[in-house]
Amino acid sequence: MGNSFGKLFTITSFGESHGRCVGVTIDGCPAGLPLTEEDIQQEVDKRRPGATMAATTRVEEDKVEILSGTFNGYTTGAPICLLVWNKDIDSSEYEKMRFLPRPGHADYTAFVKYGGFNDFRGGGRFSGRITATFVMAGAVAKKLLNLVGVEVLAHTIEIGGVKAKTKGLNEIRENVETNPLKCADLAAAKEMIRVIEKAREEGDSVGGAIEGMALNIPVGLGEPVFDTLEGDLAKALFAIPAVKGVEFGSGFSAAGKRGSENNDPFTIKDGKIVTVGNNAGGILGGISNGMPIVVRIAIKPTPSIASSQETVDIKKMQSASLEIKGRHDTCLVPRAVPVVESMMAVTLCDFAMRAGLIPEVIK
Amino acid sequence: MGNSFGKLFTITSFGESHGRCVGVTIDGCPAGLPLTEEDIQQEVDKRRPGATMAATTRVEEDKVEILSGTFNGYTTGAPICLLVWNKDIDSSEYEKMRFLPRPGHADYTAFVKYGGFNDFRGGGRFSGRITATFVMAGAVAKKLLNLVGVEVLAHTIEIGGVKAKTKGLNEIRENVETNPLKCADLAAAKEMIRVIEKAREEGDSVGGAIEGMALNIPVGLGEPVFDTLEGDLAKALFAIPAVKGVEFGSGFSAAGKRGSENNDPFTIKDGKIVTVGNNAGGILGGISNGMPIVVRIAIKPTPSIASSQETVDIKKMQSASLEIKGRHDTCLVPRAVPVVESMMAVTLCDFAMRAGLIPEVIK
Amino acid sequence: MGNSFGKLFTITSFGESHGRCVGVTIDGCPAGLPLTEEDIQQEVDKRRPGATMAATTRVEEDKVEILSGTFNGYTTGAPICLLVWNKDIDSSEYEKMRFLPRPGHADYTAFVKYGGFNDFRGGGRFSGRITATFVMAGAVAKKLLNLVGVEVLAHTIEIGGVKAKTKGLNEIRENVETNPLKCADLAAAKEMIRVIEKAREEGDSVGGAIEGMALNIPVGLGEPVFDTLEGDLAKALFAIPAVKGVEFGSGFSAAGKRGSENNDPFTIKDGKIVTVGNNAGGILGGISNGMPIVVRIAIKPTPSIASSQETVDIKKMQSASLEIKGRHDTCLVPRAVPVVESMMAVTLCDFAMRAGLIPEVIK
Amino acid sequence: MGNSFGKLFTITSFGESHGRCVGVTIDGCPAGLPLTEEDIQQEVDKRRPGATMAATTRVEEDKVEILSGTFNGYTTGAPICLLVWNKDIDSSEYEKMRFLPRPGHADYTAFVKYGGFNDFRGGGRFSGRITATFVMAGAVAKKLLNLVGVEVLAHTIEIGGVKAKTKGLNEIRENVETNPLKCADLAAAKEMIRVIEKAREEGDSVGGAIEGMALNIPVGLGEPVFDTLEGDLAKALFAIPAVKGVEFGSGFSAAGKRGSENNDPFTIKDGKIVTVGNNAGGILGGISNGMPIVVRIAIKPTPSIASSQETVDIKKMQSASLEIKGRHDTCLVPRAVPVVESMMAVTLCDFAMRAGLIPEVIK
Repeated sequence: MGNSFGKLFTITSFGESHGRCVGVTIDGCPAGLPLTEEDIQQEVDKRRPGATMAATTRVEEDKVEILSGTFNGYTTGAPICLLVWNKDIDSSEYEKMRFLPRPGHADYTAFVKYGGFNDFRGGGRFSGRITATFVMAGAVAKKLLNLVGVEVLAHTIEIGGVKAKTKGLNEIRENVETNPLKCADLAAAKEMIRVIEKAREEGDSVGGAIEGMALNIPVGLGEPVFDTLEGDLAKALFAIPAVKGVEFGSGFSAAGKRGSENNDPFTIKDGKIVTVGNNAGGILGGISNGMPIVVRIAIKPTPSIASSQETVDIKKMQSASLEIKGRHDTCLVPRAVPVVESMMAVTLCDFAMRAGLIPEVIK
Repeated sequence: MGNSFGKLFTITSFGESHGRCVGVTIDGCPAGLPLTEEDIQQEVDKRRPGATMAATTRVEEDKVEILSGTFNGYTTGAPICLLVWNKDIDSSEYEKMRFLPRPGHADYTAFVKYGGFNDFRGGGRFSGRITATFVMAGAVAKKLLNLVGVEVLAHTIEIGGVKAKTKGLNEIRENVETNPLKCADLAAAKEMIRVIEKAREEGDSVGGAIEGMALNIPVGLGEPVFDTLEGDLAKALFAIPAVKGVEFGSGFSAAGKRGSENNDPFTIKDGKIVTVGNNAGGILGGISNGMPIVVRIAIKPTPSIASSQETVDIKKMQSASLEIKGRHDTCLVPRAVPVVESMMAVTLCDFAMRAGLIPEVIK
Repeated sequence: MGNSFGKLFTITSFGESHGRCVGVTIDGCPAGLPLTEEDIQQEVDKRRPGATMAATTRVEEDKVEILSGTFNGYTTGAPICLLVWNKDIDSSEYEKMRFLPRPGHADYTAFVKYGGFNDFRGGGRFSGRITATFVMAGAVAKKLLNLVGVEVLAHTIEIGGVKAKTKGLNEIRENVETNPLKCADLAAAKEMIRVIEKAREEGDSVGGAIEGMALNIPVGLGEPVFDTLEGDLAKALFAIPAVKGVEFGSGFSAAGKRGSENNDPFTIKDGKIVTVGNNAGGILGGISNGMPIVVRIAIKPTPSIASSQETVDIKKMQSASLEIKGRHDTCLVPRAVPVVESMMAVTLCDFAMRAGLIPEVIK
Repeated sequence: MGNSFGKLFTITSFGESHGRCVGVTIDGCPAGLPLTEEDIQQEVDKRRPGATMAATTRVEEDKVEILSGTFNGYTTGAPICLLVWNKDIDSSEYEKMRFLPRPGHADYTAFVKYGGFNDFRGGGRFSGRITATFVMAGAVAKKLLNLVGVEVLAHTIEIGGVKAKTKGLNEIRENVETNPLKCADLAAAKEMIRVIEKAREEGDSVGGAIEGMALNIPVGLGEPVFDTLEGDLAKALFAIPAVKGVEFGSGFSAAGKRGSENNDPFTIKDGKIVTVGNNAGGILGGISNGMPIVVRIAIKPTPSIASSQETVDIKKMQSASLEIKGRHDTCLVPRAVPVVESMMAVTLCDFAMRAGLIPEVIK
């Protein structure tokens, strides 16, 4: 239960980390959208660990396959099933830890909820690998949003306590793919790498934060009171493992602000109504106001660390200590950046369809 | 569209600030729950402005009526319609501001989305008054959660830059209703009152933050990957006007932490598996882990301020200035506290039903 | 659970036969639709028992109230709550029958499902009176469908074994409101009245059938494979108490036909593609083909009959006999006709919105 | 849109007749159910054309694969993706007919709805082959229903005007798999074969009817007023191509009956409340009453016939004639029998889960 998201552009994720595959079905994509495996592959590749120390060394050569929903290079209006086969992976380490839930992971909660029947290998359904299915769906959503001029963009703004300086939109666009951390502030990126390096050497990990933006959003997306733009974006983003906080515009800093300071006055610019400032993060009353949607996401430090940790043997019901073998990302933030973009795109695409902006057939 | 929430315990909100009423229909409440208008009235009264300067002087004598779904004092399994009639309210001020969208409000976005047909009086569908419907639904959800031992509790942790000290659970329970700010730190509460007073005198407003907790939650609530506990709680909480951020456990502070610090080790206490610390906020992998669920919510400063503000006359398409008449809450935080509790209760009740914890008939 | 219907035009029904009211909330109605209580009253009045022997003598002076969702005579885009207050009704007869489930009614199944907590008075939630909520919602749906030229029309085609002759569209439109049986074949209508009269004198009741049509439907409504036009219309129609069968086009008679006979050949008429014949009932592959949608619904004889019936005392668990007092419709068919229209309109309106035919704002 | 069904046991179908595969994802299956590919293969094989003249000679060696959701032979609580790869099929005939919509098929409606982008080969998404995905999902649903003792059973009751005699339950169970027509009346089956043979020789096809039953259903399944047992079963059954009518219990014959005749009196048998007769088809007020659920489905004659048919060239917009090459089932009824069982099982499984009968974890 709970593996579908979206009302009109509905994605259903399936697959496990060490199972046969991870995949996603998209129901509600209009007919007539040009779509090839290469389109999706490009997005999935962004999730691939980089060449740097920020990355796990596990090589994931994920090759996307389209199983249904396209014909002669166009979507047909039928459900699109996208899939990546898993390579043969050694799961023996996980067998050893079967009854030793890793702190910060879903091992314990999944064990209880599913009565021990869950596929625990590599985190199973709770692995970060599942986000490949989000990115595949996001690739289609981005193509649809492009048709109405909407751009979705995310970048790293904090890692291990190092905060990036605020950069302009062009600088973000230019810099984000030039460094493995996907950070627009290249000086900060260097410092972030040092911090990650140090944590790794000490058998530890670091957290961080990502900023997501949606540009050229028309006024009127969002369906209050419950299906607000903030609400559904937040729900989509909390589906990404390791996300522990979501804020829009001035966010938590609004708690310390005054109304006169936090309100964005309306003004006219180039014949259009805009706001001076964007403390609202592009959303008023749960509805887009035409300004950029700005969201920030807190990513916790990777729970898999090399150092020994205290846990419980849930079979013997006694204390135990645990050492997690293998190589894991010291910081999840860079690889989460394209996932943030994807979940934003999926959500916004659904709202754009609800608002009638994307037709049943693309012409 | 978008006025329903919940899969098995489904609430549908209706009504406007200056319309005839505000109401809510609950579909999915089990039969056999004792339920009277008084039960719901108690919760709605908590939302009522207090006797202090934190409060608007508009007197809201909301009297709850049960229109359907109960019989002889028990729920019947049929949809429960709950309603509060609006008193006659002077809407003339709003007529004057019809084409002058108030900064920080939904006036502009609603005008565009609904083509100017929206009921703009008092914010209409976007008024804080709509949260009375959340509280009515929450009252029923709380009664159901009580049956399985779950307690939901919220309190003010920050107003106008003044942060409350961390307090123990008993102190929170005792103090929260003893002061109009619903703050467990009574010393901080006094300072918060001063800050609010000062802002009001200066024709301004202040924001703040609320902490919500759910206690005695069983392990296993939440339906990953999309219907996570964090995701659905966040969605529910973003339905509350003025909420701009939601974080769980260590939240945004996790960005600066290391894994060894942020992971909560498992241990055994009183024969049960618990975690040392609760950086996870009671949720791992989107599923409750048995620890208290802890969420913090950022509330922006009241957008309605007495000072003059810049806006646009959307009919004449020219700059204009605006003065908002009438008395408005200088700080929304205290009145949002019971609303936070309510939306948490509604969400958790839905998850408890999905997990089969609450039966079709209460015996 | 289960009291909402529709994906984009979503109705939520509430209320009981002898409770305070019956009502419905419509979420998803576009803004800008002119809508008054009189618009809805007209449709509700069609459900009112006529002046003839076909009708119960219980006078229902249902006065529709709009509780939310309109402003200055137009819909606002917010949820529309529509309601009819129940008059004070003597429920003492039902108290006597509390543990004697009436054959053919939901008394027994509701008692078991809701653990005896259901409001049994007058059938409670299972009363035909609940269909007034369908008709209120249908009134709004019809207005929306009118905007795109779609007409929904139902008429009685069989009562108590008397079948109406097939009539042309104009004759149906003209005759259906001229006789209390809502039958286009006036000669048959007279015979039907005799059959009803006779059954009533004998303390019995009769069943019948209704044909529903939707005219001027554009090609392309319906969302296979599960949300087919037939499937959702059937689901909507089975919500009407006493409906036991639903068929489209040639329906059950197709079982005895050959393909060469049942296939409707395509041809061109007035520059448009149409079919010769309409065995498909206007639907191919679950999608409208532009021909009239034709559905027939079987209505069982009124289960409330004056004659003594065998039942069980479910408290004492022993056989019992039961005599239902009061006056009940001898035949439900005529009063179900506007309800069939309403549920067809609600369903088609939802599909028209899914297909993007009805915009977010009516201009 | 519209390719998912079920609220708690949710299936999402994908794939096309001549695409790479047909598949289905099941979200909501409890953990701990033993499930192998062989379990599903058995059900899929029932859909395979038999050895007789009733069958197409196209050999479909569908081999079921489980892509996700099981581990060590048990379900895990994660979504189960089931798939059958399509064999290479010559689609050249369909290319020729691309702009010549086949009467009685979805070619024309799909062409218009999807702007000509639909995969038309072999009917694409509208092919009977898609029902293999229903059967795969049904196989899982049946296993879950077995746990609570529910049996679902369907059989042919009419083909080409030949009606089967009513048979007892045991005779149905015994005979249905002994003849290719899946008819319990073996004498009628012989006659049906003659009728099919004759139609085939004449380049024509025949329709028929199927009866579905669910046995040992507990009292209380169904969620009125909209999610009735009849309504959701009908919706599920209308998803099967060629179904044009659905009736429960006395169904359309109720139109000609009197209440005294159609009402099923309650009585006590073996200490349980049952009804004398089952005109209700096991459902009262949309809720199961503990008697067998009995539904009958009308299947239209195969629209693909060998004889020449009139149609329209939709590109040239002129009349055309069409001859459908290849071998097609002369009668769809026998192959639809397991599909009816499957869709009944899927629907009932969902209702059983809603009623809390099937736990989150099977032990």
